Amino acid sequence: MGLLLLCNGGFMLLAALVSGLYQDGVTQEITLSAILTLLIGIVAMFFTRGHKKEVKRKEGYLIVTLGWLVMSVSGILPYYLSGAIPNITDAFFETISGYTTTGASILNDIERLPRGIIFWRSLTHWIGGMGIIVLAIAILPLLGIGGMQLFAAEAPGPNADKLHPRITDTAKRLWLIYVGYTAAETILLQLAGMTFFDAINHAMATLSTGGFSTRNASLAYWNDQPLIQYIVILFMFLAGGNFVLSYFAFKGKVQRVLRDEEFKYYGIFIVLFVIVAAVVVYTRANVQPGEMFPMVLGEGESAFRHALFQVVAVITTTGFVTADFTAWTPFLTVFFFGLMFSGGSAGSTAGGIKIMRHILIIKNGLLEFKRTLHPNAIIPVRFNQKTVTEHIVYNIIGFFVLYMLLFLIGASVLGMLGLDFVSAIGGAASSLGNVGPAFGSLNPLSNFSGLPVLGKWWCAFLMLAGRLELFTVLILFTPYFWKRT
Amino acid sequence: MGLLLLCNGGFMLLAALVSGLYQDGVTQEITLSAILTLLIGIVAMFFTRGHKKEVKRKEGYLIVTLGWLVMSVSGILPYYLSGAIPNITDAFFETISGYTTTGASILNDIERLPRGIIFWRSLTHWIGGMGIIVLAIAILPLLGIGGMQLFAAEAPGPNADKLHPRITDTAKRLWLIYVGYTAAETILLQLAGMTFFDAINHAMATLSTGGFSTRNASLAYWNDQPLIQYIVILFMFLAGGNFVLSYFAFKGKVQRVLRDEEFKYYGIFIVLFVIVAAVVVYTRANVQPGEMFPMVLGEGESAFRHALFQVVAVITTTGFVTADFTAWTPFLTVFFFGLMFSGGSAGSTAGGIKIMRHILIIKNGLLEFKRTLHPNAIIPVRFNQKTVTEHIVYNIIGFFVLYMLLFLIGASVLGMLGLDFVSAIGGAASSLGNVGPAFGSLNPLSNFSGLPVLGKWWCAFLMLAGRLELFTVLILFTPYFWKRT
Repeated sequence: MGLLLLCNGGFMLLAALVSGLYQDGVTQEITLSAILTLLIGIVAMFFTRGHKKEVKRKEGYLIVTLGWLVMSVSGILPYYLSGAIPNITDAFFETISGYTTTGASILNDIERLPRGIIFWRSLTHWIGGMGIIVLAIAILPLLGIGGMQLFAAEAPGPNADKLHPRITDTAKRLWLIYVGYTAAETILLQLAGMTFFDAINHAMATLSTGGFSTRNASLAYWNDQPLIQYIVILFMFLAGGNFVLSYFAFKGKVQRVLRDEEFKYYGIFIVLFVIVAAVVVYTRANVQPGEMFPMVLGEGESAFRHALFQVVAVITTTGFVTADFTAWTPFLTVFFFGLMFSGGSAGSTAGGIKIMRHILIIKNGLLEFKRTLHPNAIIPVRFNQKTVTEHIVYNIIGFFVLYMLLFLIGASVLGMLGLDFVSAIGGAASSLGNVGPAFGSLNPLSNFSGLPVLGKWWCAFLMLAGRLELFTVLILFTPYFWKRT
Repeated sequence: MGLLLLCNGGFMLLAALVSGLYQDGVTQEITLSAILTLLIGIVAMFFTRGHKKEVKRKEGYLIVTLGWLVMSVSGILPYYLSGAIPNITDAFFETISGYTTTGASILNDIERLPRGIIFWRSLTHWIGGMGIIVLAIAILPLLGIGGMQLFAAEAPGPNADKLHPRITDTAKRLWLIYVGYTAAETILLQLAGMTFFDAINHAMATLSTGGFSTRNASLAYWNDQPLIQYIVILFMFLAGGNFVLSYFAFKGKVQRVLRDEEFKYYGIFIVLFVIVAAVVVYTRANVQPGEMFPMVLGEGESAFRHALFQVVAVITTTGFVTADFTAWTPFLTVFFFGLMFSGGSAGSTAGGIKIMRHILIIKNGLLEFKRTLHPNAIIPVRFNQKTVTEHIVYNIIGFFVLYMLLFLIGASVLGMLGLDFVSAIGGAASSLGNVGPAFGSLNPLSNFSGLPVLGKWWCAFLMLAGRLELFTVLILFTPYFWKRT
């Protein structure tokens, strides 16, 4: 925790530097936040300097959950001390929405914020994304969560049995790609006409599949600059794909990428969904122009681009917005609600259920019919040409069931707090899936500022549970965890 | 199929008799329907008289699904020939909604219908309910579907290995209870002030957990006669409970009933849900009188009764209505939407996922945390003091996953056909769970007549799939089923 605070303090210093460069008037406050965070980190490390460095399996769950919470709590400081968000609930919501790379916001006017604060906001996404890459590829497989074991052998790095050297090595290689992609997107966006500040903030929010924008209108601000939107689409697609595959691609092992079953379906699903959405948007836009659309989507390219952008933004759980997809057609509203449950690839920065789990659940579901007909035969599921053990399949199905139950409970609680039906189920699905924009009163043109206080804390909990693949967080609430063994 | 048609023709003769007694002018048409149905049945039996009577496992799925379809197709005749429903789509929808004991209707003015037709409508529920009792307790366990194997040893009757004598025996004993309950409710309702005609129709619709009423306002017609509503609540509760337990209760084995785990949770869930709903209804009714309620629910007893009635009506998937629960409060809308996924007990006439499956899924889910912490331990689920095999647990989870997927697909298709978001997801949940009333444009005060033609066929499919526990119907669409072995 101390080490995490040191890192976080370091990142705050970076935000303070940005604040100073733009002379936005809150440089002192951000610097103070950084110093406070660093101090607490140093004190924590000092008092635990004698502790053993070995991490046991059980401690793993606690470290991951507490780690994300410690980051979020310390991350409040710049917002709070600068007065940008004067209220603890709102500041915590915005921070955890950042670190979980959700991108749901309570800010009504982003453009009026000091630049240092806007930068810090994007940075929370980017830090969260770094954490998730390591989590998904190096830590969760070891903790045995939701089928991530499938990727245990996939991670680059030495195949050591010890946790520590392996994580460090994997993290270094994948972070390099993450940093490289962020730099590449920043440069491309700038070449396409964005200012440097807008470009780097959007790059950080894209690669982490977060979705915080520097503009109130999100990416709709650049609706007359298609090139910018296409660049963002490309990088959302990359961020929602397995980073290990990016690593192999850079190593020249392109065959390895194309043979990957999850990547194949990730591509197929996006193409299919974009065709459906684009056809509906195009047809309706031309049949009843201007009636159901907040923006003119009449031209072919425009209909295609908006459909593509929103499908990729929701599947990868980024949540950037070029148009209010909840206002397109009733069918597309249901359609995008369904996509909230998709999620990107395992080993990406995307949230949600993830393509890999959907494939395995569907495959197993189809085979269940075969098993019903032949009750004595053993019929295993195969993934990437390998047999998947029953244990992992049931782990994945267990994850799915838990996800749906938490969604139902999540929606019920929001309903109990006074949200209408559509907002309640939309808000729960979006928070749990780390998407960002939702439906009803939480639609893409609106935000989460109108939620009651308890609703904000509840959504924060859903974001964290969803981000850490449910088990990591929820296991701490079971008696089994606290029982001595 | 021939035998089923003979039975159905016999029931139509009964409806013709009722029609004749009330001289409603359609006696000839209903008699003609009966004769046609009997004739086709006789012809079918004549041509298959040489066939072997042995039924294999695979044929079981086909017989069940085709059986329900043959009943529904022949059941159209009275509606169609009498001109009560002049359109095939609507007539099929109303018939299958009857036989699947859903209770969703396309009729805008029930009270204007000839009495023989109203009686036939209730009768389709009652016949469907008879079919379901045998299906749930004697056939599905043998077909290995969705954990119903748990009840294989529970059915009363000789523990023979052969399918035929066992089914006949079980059916006879449980049908006796079914008929007895129907008679008892009819008498009680009449004593409480209903006409005989209203009483017997409502009794048939209650015991089958169907929900067709003789009145346009459903049970709200008797809102000033609480006794009638309490009687209906009691019998909905009995119909949503396992009929095998009723059998044991009549045999004097009350301990056997009270020890039953599913029955215990069935009771606990209802009590908890009623408390939540009643408190919200009572508070809101007194805080903002008349504002959100279509009827005055101000008094304590009234708030309690409406909450109790609607909770029991939705959990047991009966779908009778005393008040528009979708207009109470936003929270209660989400709450009742959640209840649509509950379902009554296994071995009842109720639809939905069923209490037994929920208990096992929740138990297994909690144990999954224990298993994650102790990956090498074998930790089985227990139900009714017995260990449940892994095979059955995964069968049940498979059912749940399939149910949720079919719900999502169901809602998407309805959305694609032009329904708004709330109506689409409400309509899919209600059809799949065989509840009846839904949300949005399909709310309890409205009906399914406004659905597009394709939407009616789609909902009919969902009703049938839900009623026959998904696997029985969907297995026919897999290549495994049609492969020769």
